Amino acid sequence: MNETLFNVPALDRTLTAALQRKIDRKTKPLGALGQIETMAMQIGLIQRTLTPQFKQPHFVVFAGDHGATRLGISSASQEVTWQMVENFLAGGAGINVFVRQNGLGITIVDAGVAHNFGPRPGLVDAKIAAGTRNYVDEPAMTAAQCALAMQRGAHIVASLVAAGSNVIGFGEMGIGNSSSASLITHCLTCAPLDECIGRGAGLGEAGLQRKRRLLAQALARAGQPRAPLTVLAEFGGFEIAMMAGAMLGAAQAGVLLLIDGFIAGSAALVASRLAPHFAEYCIFCHHSVEPGHRIQLAAMNADPLIDLRLRLGEGTGAALAYPLVLAAVNFLNEMASFESAGVSDH
Amino acid sequence: MNETLFNVPALDRTLTAALQRKIDRKTKPLGALGQIETMAMQIGLIQRTLTPQFKQPHFVVFAGDHGATRLGISSASQEVTWQMVENFLAGGAGINVFVRQNGLGITIVDAGVAHNFGPRPGLVDAKIAAGTRNYVDEPAMTAAQCALAMQRGAHIVASLVAAGSNVIGFGEMGIGNSSSASLITHCLTCAPLDECIGRGAGLGEAGLQRKRRLLAQALARAGQPRAPLTVLAEFGGFEIAMMAGAMLGAAQAGVLLLIDGFIAGSAALVASRLAPHFAEYCIFCHHSVEPGHRIQLAAMNADPLIDLRLRLGEGTGAALAYPLVLAAVNFLNEMASFESAGVSDH
Repeated sequence: MNETLFNVPALDRTLTAALQRKIDRKTKPLGALGQIETMAMQIGLIQRTLTPQFKQPHFVVFAGDHGATRLGISSASQEVTWQMVENFLAGGAGINVFVRQNGLGITIVDAGVAHNFGPRPGLVDAKIAAGTRNYVDEPAMTAAQCALAMQRGAHIVASLVAAGSNVIGFGEMGIGNSSSASLITHCLTCAPLDECIGRGAGLGEAGLQRKRRLLAQALARAGQPRAPLTVLAEFGGFEIAMMAGAMLGAAQAGVLLLIDGFIAGSAALVASRLAPHFAEYCIFCHHSVEPGHRIQLAAMNADPLIDLRLRLGEGTGAALAYPLVLAAVNFLNEMASFESAGVSDH
Repeated sequence: MNETLFNVPALDRTLTAALQRKIDRKTKPLGALGQIETMAMQIGLIQRTLTPQFKQPHFVVFAGDHGATRLGISSASQEVTWQMVENFLAGGAGINVFVRQNGLGITIVDAGVAHNFGPRPGLVDAKIAAGTRNYVDEPAMTAAQCALAMQRGAHIVASLVAAGSNVIGFGEMGIGNSSSASLITHCLTCAPLDECIGRGAGLGEAGLQRKRRLLAQALARAGQPRAPLTVLAEFGGFEIAMMAGAMLGAAQAGVLLLIDGFIAGSAALVASRLAPHFAEYCIFCHHSVEPGHRIQLAAMNADPLIDLRLRLGEGTGAALAYPLVLAAVNFLNEMASFESAGVSDH
């Protein structure tokens, strides 16, 4: 693994006082725009300016399959992963609807789907393998595969940044991947495993019990790993590893990151353990229904924007929240000050 | 008062099953889009169609002054009301920034500001009087003034509906109006007065105590009224009364209403007490920092969309939330079904 990927600098806080003054002179009671103001500060610091701008906002959706899916850790069958990739490419999925509404670009990445798409316009072929191995029996991937996935993720983001994007959203698709996210969350936060496990796409009570049993087996087999890269390789998936690398690359490039829900959150959690300043570049866009998400958010000291009881993934929560993030930029640039508007400041 | 204004019909639920089926066949786990799905159902029912559309979405901001302001119920001085109206007309206020971002029309209404604006492009002169009377000593307005304000509000909305708007957002400006909202909330919900009172634009501890004392005096003077129109006339303001009439007119016309925070919520509370089906036409867009807002929301069985710790008013919370509401329409119209996308439904 090329560890330079983990060198995410602390935010440059030189402009903190100037940004706070600009925010506080806007025609409103002090602090009255809540998280809009907090985001304005964060975005100003990331872009090192009092007049930030979003350029070519773009979403990347990473897809991958999971060897453990065949054991019944999800209510959906594995073929849904590639079928949904086709849905993304045709523009019919939830994420397509919401990026279209909000004027966002989108790139779909095959990080490791168990399906041969062939060369396809709009699909980035970054496949590591046709799905991970079954982590109940053996590590989901090798350390080399994990490193390769992270590097490919970083390269995809680097090309977006080179093309001018300075705000990037992260989403995923992979039947079974809430199980990987649960295992990662447990290993990296030490929260009880059962509190990290939810119903995913819609398991019933028996399914949930099976998922809990299988994940406990996987943990016992792997010997309760704690090192972030070991945890990532042990439990996967390729889409999560690639997303973690992409997120680190984006933070390193000084881009604003829009983090979706529980699965994207597990990649962010890995990234935050590898690079302590990582979360300073992130907006945690929504609070997912999956119970483990709360644990991730607390571990990253995150303050999510919306809670609409979403549990779809794909980046939908982040794409839905984007206009709120853009509002922070517009607030900073367009709203009048007490002086400019002739409004009394008392 | 023309009581036909209170005849808001129950939502026609004929299409409930057809809408639910359309929502459930979308390519996502059942229920995975949470409140987006709930809104899609509500909007489909209001518009009586499986393919709703928003036409000319528009915000109306009602402004008025309050006689009790001179006693120090607010941290801001009364002149800020007219100064902020000027800011609205110049396009520099928070609400202007957010309606511009989201492609929304805006109308500013002088419902009773203590200032002579003269004829001004972009400002609707619906002034009832130059501010209400001081409700600590006497009713804020007469019953006739209250009825006139409500009728003028309904007329303003009727002209927007005639021009084609089918989604209308409601906001306000009026130094001191969180006190009116607190009194209305207390009288119509029977929640303890102190739990309905907050810091408004930013009162300190001494100011908050003074506000509590003065509002308790006003209540004692008025004899703890409970009838909605009496409460509205006793405590005002003109902007709240006009907004309540506008809201009732919008619901009666079958428009979708976007309700902002605590002050708009007090108008909605009055409307919901006058017309039991009123809230079926409303989306409660955000959860305000003002403590009494929670009480209003519970009284209307409302499930607000966002909680960004906002307390600005002007309609800003509703304008910020608008893209989420629009997403519900786009979800229903644009997202593929399992059948159309060839995705397995299991």
